[in-house]
Amino acid sequence: MNVEIINIGDELLIGQVVNTNASWMAEQLNLAGFRVHQVSVVGDNSDHIAEALGLAETRAEVVLISGGIGPTRDDITKNTLCEYFNTRLVFNEEAYREVEAMFSKRGYPVTELNRQQAMLPEHCIAIANKLGTARGMWFEKSNPTVIFVSMPGVPFEMKAMMTGEIIPRLKQRFHTPFILHRTILTQGIGESFLAARIEVWEDSLPPHIRLAYLPQPGIVRLRLTGTGDQEQRLADELAKLIAALQELIPDYIYGYENDTLEELVGKILTDKGATLATAESCTGGYIAQLITSVPGSSAYYKGSVVCYANEVKEQVLGVQHETIEAFGAVSEQTVTEMAIGVQTLLNVDYVIATSGIAGPTGGTKEKPVGTTWIAIATPDEVYAHVYQFGDSRDRNIRRAALQALNLLRKKIVF
Amino acid sequence: MNVEIINIGDELLIGQVVNTNASWMAEQLNLAGFRVHQVSVVGDNSDHIAEALGLAETRAEVVLISGGIGPTRDDITKNTLCEYFNTRLVFNEEAYREVEAMFSKRGYPVTELNRQQAMLPEHCIAIANKLGTARGMWFEKSNPTVIFVSMPGVPFEMKAMMTGEIIPRLKQRFHTPFILHRTILTQGIGESFLAARIEVWEDSLPPHIRLAYLPQPGIVRLRLTGTGDQEQRLADELAKLIAALQELIPDYIYGYENDTLEELVGKILTDKGATLATAESCTGGYIAQLITSVPGSSAYYKGSVVCYANEVKEQVLGVQHETIEAFGAVSEQTVTEMAIGVQTLLNVDYVIATSGIAGPTGGTKEKPVGTTWIAIATPDEVYAHVYQFGDSRDRNIRRAALQALNLLRKKIVF
Repeated sequence: MNVEIINIGDELLIGQVVNTNASWMAEQLNLAGFRVHQVSVVGDNSDHIAEALGLAETRAEVVLISGGIGPTRDDITKNTLCEYFNTRLVFNEEAYREVEAMFSKRGYPVTELNRQQAMLPEHCIAIANKLGTARGMWFEKSNPTVIFVSMPGVPFEMKAMMTGEIIPRLKQRFHTPFILHRTILTQGIGESFLAARIEVWEDSLPPHIRLAYLPQPGIVRLRLTGTGDQEQRLADELAKLIAALQELIPDYIYGYENDTLEELVGKILTDKGATLATAESCTGGYIAQLITSVPGSSAYYKGSVVCYANEVKEQVLGVQHETIEAFGAVSEQTVTEMAIGVQTLLNVDYVIATSGIAGPTGGTKEKPVGTTWIAIATPDEVYAHVYQFGDSRDRNIRRAALQALNLLRKKIVF
Repeated sequence: MNVEIINIGDELLIGQVVNTNASWMAEQLNLAGFRVHQVSVVGDNSDHIAEALGLAETRAEVVLISGGIGPTRDDITKNTLCEYFNTRLVFNEEAYREVEAMFSKRGYPVTELNRQQAMLPEHCIAIANKLGTARGMWFEKSNPTVIFVSMPGVPFEMKAMMTGEIIPRLKQRFHTPFILHRTILTQGIGESFLAARIEVWEDSLPPHIRLAYLPQPGIVRLRLTGTGDQEQRLADELAKLIAALQELIPDYIYGYENDTLEELVGKILTDKGATLATAESCTGGYIAQLITSVPGSSAYYKGSVVCYANEVKEQVLGVQHETIEAFGAVSEQTVTEMAIGVQTLLNVDYVIATSGIAGPTGGTKEKPVGTTWIAIATPDEVYAHVYQFGDSRDRNIRRAALQALNLLRKKIVF
């Protein structure tokens, strides 16, 4: 069974907007067991839209359309749909009432434009839009049966409609196999090294369970997708595989599904009633920013000293001038003194400290760009380790921050 | 003259990768005076690729294909192209030598796969790829003439090929009008308020000059696109329009083209030989991170005290306990004392300090979520101002940081 996606909008064809709707829709459909055969992006033009509908109908059983409807751009798409499906626009009392209710709740007046939006094709199922004024429209053609659904292009409206209405309805209409996904999150190992480490495990996967590597800077997500008929059996099978993987690479797995390191660290600290501070040189505040991006982080996070200049390391954190002179700012000795300094100054249980050469300049033969010392202070000890990241300033900062958060997590948990 | 884009790759149809190639290509083509008529995304499947080529040929004079070639996925696409253009693969000595030279420079051995990559269709122009091993392939069909170009899907290889080879060659082949773009960067005013402020100016634009609003969180970019025959006259016309705009909204324009606030601030400080530090509460290190994302920022940026906890404001920055008691942490008095405190502690010329309620919790009737105090300390004064941002934690942090950087810029420049 094939699904095609048609995205309508001139803004997509001049490159003003990246077509994230298509990838999101494709991913959700794929996760639900549907296969996307093609994505077509067309402009706000009646003939072109009609042509795209006609071609999609020859290749797919389901055609999902996003964009081209909404208060200021209804005309072309809706009229084209009416013509294509040989129907006409009629006033939909229910749709109008809903918009009216939504607007009065927000204190806005209902405009003539909104009234026009309640004009819907006579022969379509109107799909509720909880987050906006443009309804979805579900059409069916027979011999052979092809389903067409038109949705708004505003991403959050489209997403809510897909998740809440379209995918559940499609699952009722088409037999899809039962699909289970599990995502395992790893940090501290690159994709190719990870693949080599888990090769035997990967080769042992049965044909109904597929593995995808989803790398991001500093992180590799592993997604297992299992297909089958018996939910419980599949869940058990995946759990067993993940347990085996956990034994293979215990040092690199930090979480599952949508976990983030900053949230995990926050939860652990909250549970322990412990506090955290950071002393950042090369990461320049990025770790602080990650930690404080979590709502409620003020409960455990006291703050950071971003000590970009050596004199700040000395004067604020109490790093010895002689230490920096003898070993350099990027050294085990300096990063350890930074960690102890901020632990004392901010009176916290745990500390992350970083000092490295982010680049592009500042590297030497002994300490090339990417050399990064990370220290973790706990109530009992200070641990420091050196890492070699790469050439890219941005990625070095990001990799150092994720490595530091994961190190902290391990030092607290184990 | 129509261009169509075909992106090949199963990874695009399962939503694993967002199709940023299409939007980048569309934008570059648009900026060069070409019109993109459609984007089609198809899988790594011979029949499907051939079908897409055939349909594109009926609608466009130029078909740009990305993806489906490269060391591990050459087979399908190249063979499909050969069949479509009725030619065969032959060994291209020059292409092979280039790959060999690139690999020996990097110290890699040339593999059998690389040898296969030097097999290219006999009747095509091989397009150089400075950043990878897969060459571009330029085909032409006649009656009517349609140009097809196949490029690698790796974004940086495709981009270099488009900019260095494809667009210049297309401009030689097709008459495109002369096009000039100027981007004006604004901060501190939302899109709809900006539109209202410049309505009369916008309405006065001649038909050959178009305006696009390109909003991002905290920033609105205005892009003027002028079309004409005489370069100098068009440049003068745009300069005049920008000068008029500058007079209309002097407080909101901070830069042009690809400027960023953090780079602009860095340049100004470098020119002045002045130093900067920050004291961040609600922005949690984000301003430090922006500033230190600029290579060489260690020359003027000494560091930050991220004072998430009030005790850090007091103990490290010397904010009076009585000040926080009487006025609260989010107040003119506290943010002013933070600014003075960090200016003294880190011994710098300029300071940014922030204290606000980022949300989602912590708001009150008097100080709702989004309330943010920003202070700028200069060698002569401390200036503080309160802003009302919105409900979203992420956007509040971002808007506060950009507002703070722009305030600092203005305080130094004016």
